Amino acid sequence: MSRQQVFTIFGGTGDLTFRKLLPALYNLEMTGTQEFCTQVVVIGRRDYTSEEYRELAREWVEKFARLHYKEETYQKLSQRIIYYHMDFTDEAAYEGLDSFYRDMEAENHIFYFAVAPRFFPVIVNGLKKVAGAENGKVVLEKPFGENLRAAASLNETMEKFFLPGHVYRIDHYLGKEMVRNIQTIRYANPIFSNLWDAEHIECIQISALEEVGVETRGGYYDQSGALKDMMQNHLFQILTIVAMEQPGSLTVEEMHREQMKVLSALRMPEDISANMVLGQYQGYREEKSVRKDSDTETYAAVRLFVDNDRWRGMPFYIRTGKKMEKREMQVAVVFKSPLPGVENNILNIKIQPTEGVYLQFNIKRPGEAEDIIQAKMDFCQSCSIVHQTNTPEAYERLLGACFRGERSWFSQWDQIEASWKYVDDIREKYRRGQLPVYEYEPGSTGPEAASELLSLNGHSWFD
Amino acid sequence: MSRQQVFTIFGGTGDLTFRKLLPALYNLEMTGTQEFCTQVVVIGRRDYTSEEYRELAREWVEKFARLHYKEETYQKLSQRIIYYHMDFTDEAAYEGLDSFYRDMEAENHIFYFAVAPRFFPVIVNGLKKVAGAENGKVVLEKPFGENLRAAASLNETMEKFFLPGHVYRIDHYLGKEMVRNIQTIRYANPIFSNLWDAEHIECIQISALEEVGVETRGGYYDQSGALKDMMQNHLFQILTIVAMEQPGSLTVEEMHREQMKVLSALRMPEDISANMVLGQYQGYREEKSVRKDSDTETYAAVRLFVDNDRWRGMPFYIRTGKKMEKREMQVAVVFKSPLPGVENNILNIKIQPTEGVYLQFNIKRPGEAEDIIQAKMDFCQSCSIVHQTNTPEAYERLLGACFRGERSWFSQWDQIEASWKYVDDIREKYRRGQLPVYEYEPGSTGPEAASELLSLNGHSWFD
Repeated sequence: MSRQQVFTIFGGTGDLTFRKLLPALYNLEMTGTQEFCTQVVVIGRRDYTSEEYRELAREWVEKFARLHYKEETYQKLSQRIIYYHMDFTDEAAYEGLDSFYRDMEAENHIFYFAVAPRFFPVIVNGLKKVAGAENGKVVLEKPFGENLRAAASLNETMEKFFLPGHVYRIDHYLGKEMVRNIQTIRYANPIFSNLWDAEHIECIQISALEEVGVETRGGYYDQSGALKDMMQNHLFQILTIVAMEQPGSLTVEEMHREQMKVLSALRMPEDISANMVLGQYQGYREEKSVRKDSDTETYAAVRLFVDNDRWRGMPFYIRTGKKMEKREMQVAVVFKSPLPGVENNILNIKIQPTEGVYLQFNIKRPGEAEDIIQAKMDFCQSCSIVHQTNTPEAYERLLGACFRGERSWFSQWDQIEASWKYVDDIREKYRRGQLPVYEYEPGSTGPEAASELLSLNGHSWFD
Repeated sequence: MSRQQVFTIFGGTGDLTFRKLLPALYNLEMTGTQEFCTQVVVIGRRDYTSEEYRELAREWVEKFARLHYKEETYQKLSQRIIYYHMDFTDEAAYEGLDSFYRDMEAENHIFYFAVAPRFFPVIVNGLKKVAGAENGKVVLEKPFGENLRAAASLNETMEKFFLPGHVYRIDHYLGKEMVRNIQTIRYANPIFSNLWDAEHIECIQISALEEVGVETRGGYYDQSGALKDMMQNHLFQILTIVAMEQPGSLTVEEMHREQMKVLSALRMPEDISANMVLGQYQGYREEKSVRKDSDTETYAAVRLFVDNDRWRGMPFYIRTGKKMEKREMQVAVVFKSPLPGVENNILNIKIQPTEGVYLQFNIKRPGEAEDIIQAKMDFCQSCSIVHQTNTPEAYERLLGACFRGERSWFSQWDQIEASWKYVDDIREKYRRGQLPVYEYEPGSTGPEAASELLSLNGHSWFD
């Protein structure tokens, strides 16, 4: 059991805090994990009293917490919330913060940087004035840098001040129930584990599709794009979990080592035009804070290979896009067909919005005919109990893990470094090849070229 | 296409004819397969006119046909039905039958022996007087003999008169939708086909449980028992389909050759007491026409091995019983568990009363816990459309196959011979070992000893 810890949020009046962190803290209060954290210090530039902030926070908790609202539980949580009014870009202000912590006898710190990454260095600099801050944990949000170089610099800043083992890089996809279930589904089932290789699998597809566009985040997004915003972090994390060798033990070191091996084995395509398609939805350039001549991609599909004994020669298809016909995050494992003309067995792990497992296999058509049809089986996790209360939210799970000091489900720097390297390289190749960013219709399945990426190889996207 | 054929039923006023054959003929009329048969000659001892018989038959068709009743269709069928009043045990009467066939210019015959097997020789003898009968097909019902010796003698009678390739031995389980689906499920799905051996499978269980007791069949049943009535024919047929090697082609010869190889590889247990349990339900001796001191088994469970490269060392558990807590015919394939303490993956092929496939595999329990729970998926064939009309009835399918001259799904003599040999041997061993016929409660899961048969080997019956 860890000692009591003070949990400080920089960016306490931002969207992330209200929508995700406070509801997560409430859920943790309900489930008893809150015990690892005595005080919640919320730092913001707006002028609230703690009492005012607690009232405001209540509304968000009521609205967004997974578990039903109980006044008694909220009171327990809110009594531990202190609002601390401060401009975190003002270096001098950190002296006051230090005194404040001394008064409350704070010893063990967890700092959550719920702010844009450009502010990370200034906060770190300020924390130099806070006694004991350098022994604390720090939780960072994506994007972790804008490219390999920026990420490396940012990481240096963080690891120079904090202990490397105390830097928790959140990839909230790693908190999702069915992402964490991938390993169990792989290893605990002989019908899958025995076939988990290029010999038996035709291709693996990882999709993260969104219905929404850039909404209010046009300014950030236009500097980023689908490859950096989704592929480099979330999708590559899932790829490593799907593709890695079974760790000898489930320690954080073993698991990260195996994930890193996958990233190191990623093969860079020779001909980028046959392996990558970027797209931009019609109307994107008219979005708020987006450049009128922007060629930022809002859709990306890549075909890549993991060059090791298990996966050599088998394509992984990864795609992500905004303004798609549906919201859907899922992994599809397409097994090789044993007979010509017979449909593939497909294992489909559904991550969101539905959580569950779908399996498609073949049976004879009922009746006299001897032709083969598909039996489609659906095991819907989030359907079995009331959806909202069934599985912990990603942030709830990851905050709880951080409180307890469990690091397995956070991104390691070397993983981020390797993903950035790969994504920087393919972006650069695509740009140098003067390949088009294809227009696609909002509410569609993305650019036609992304379908051709697969059909040229005899495959198609699984829906 | 076969030439037009005259279909003659011996035993035309019996239960089988009314409940199964006439409804099957009606369904075939509906689906167009009836074209292979011009006339239906129903032979019975009762004094009906054809008109009277057709009226009587209508009631049974209305009640038991799978497809909805249409007067127009029934009229088409019934116009082709002729009732022929005759005592089939009277040798002289066959001269009249011959004239009758001559008058209707019958050329191609199909004879259905819907009578007890003790009458088969007398009918064959009579048919010697019918011109062209020896070139016809003959369809026989189980039981095919009462033991190996009787069966062999019966077979000799049949094959001496008819051409061996014209003897159709009905095992109506081979007409069941999901029995015919086993091969597709096995071969068309890599998630199963790659694991279909003793290396990956823990055990295979074949169950045929009935809720009913002997009902009106006490006299017959008491001479037979579960081993002869169910195991020797139906269950061994299913065993061979589950266990056989994939035939090079789906011709009748190839398929039967592969089935025979399985029967030839059946290993006789050294210690019968550890491999077989017989039971009798309480109250059986009070059933009508049952001997008061009968030790006939109404329940049988055996553990057996197929001694070939694919199956060596892996137990097949086969059981059948009357007065069980539920009616259920199914095959359960229990895959080996990949991790200690983790439940087996189970593929369950449900044959009756529900038709479908059930699959059980492992996932992580939703939430923070890391323990493993079972995802249970059900693909219910007979649920997807209205049950009654979804898949052809066994008799409908098998009669249609016989009309068209398709022999794959009928029992071959060598198979029957091999099954009889095995079953005769284990019965004899059990008897010589003076092993008990265990009493069990009606409505139960059978004798406790049948559970121990499995639990001694770390297994349990799948329900």
